[in-house]
Amino acid sequence: MLAPRSESLRNQESNMKQQATFYHAGCPVCVTAEQSLLGALDRSRIDVEVVHLGTAKNRVAEAKAAGVQSVPALVIGGQALHVNFGAPISAL
Amino acid sequence: MLAPRSESLRNQESNMKQQATFYHAGCPVCVTAEQSLLGALDRSRIDVEVVHLGTAKNRVAEAKAAGVQSVPALVIGGQALHVNFGAPISAL
Repeated sequence: MLAPRSESLRNQESNMKQQATFYHAGCPVCVTAEQSLLGALDRSRIDVEVVHLGTAKNRVAEAKAAGVQSVPALVIGGQALHVNFGAPISAL
Repeated sequence: MLAPRSESLRNQESNMKQQATFYHAGCPVCVTAEQSLLGALDRSRIDVEVVHLGTAKNRVAEAKAAGVQSVPALVIGGQALHVNFGAPISAL
């Protein structure tokens, strides 16, 4: 069964957006980076998921696999961008 | 003399944009960060000036004053965001 047209368009728009993940640990450095950086991203083109690794410990392995060595970090376009230094991922 | 309306609107739009500066030194880490990060910023709201501190040595003092300790770094909203680590600013 075909989806209604509006739903189809929404899915298409969503599929075309670049996915990014901001990993943090709730630390002051993380909060500052989140406010400065995420507010500057083009949300019309990029979907950003914010993940608190202090509480979502089941996401730590995924972050490590993406190359995250410390938080805060933004993973985008296959690159792990470490933004300042809050905590090493080994502490999470 | 009043500016033509279109020019006036352009100036107003430009004045409302947030200013940001991306400092780098042409290193591979800098290039990767520039490509990943600057391409994700919302250029309709943010004007980004890209400064190569290896060639524009007269800008090093300004970068230090903004809190830049290493490159690549993005200064935005009064915050110096160090993105990964290419070189210490003391080497520039």
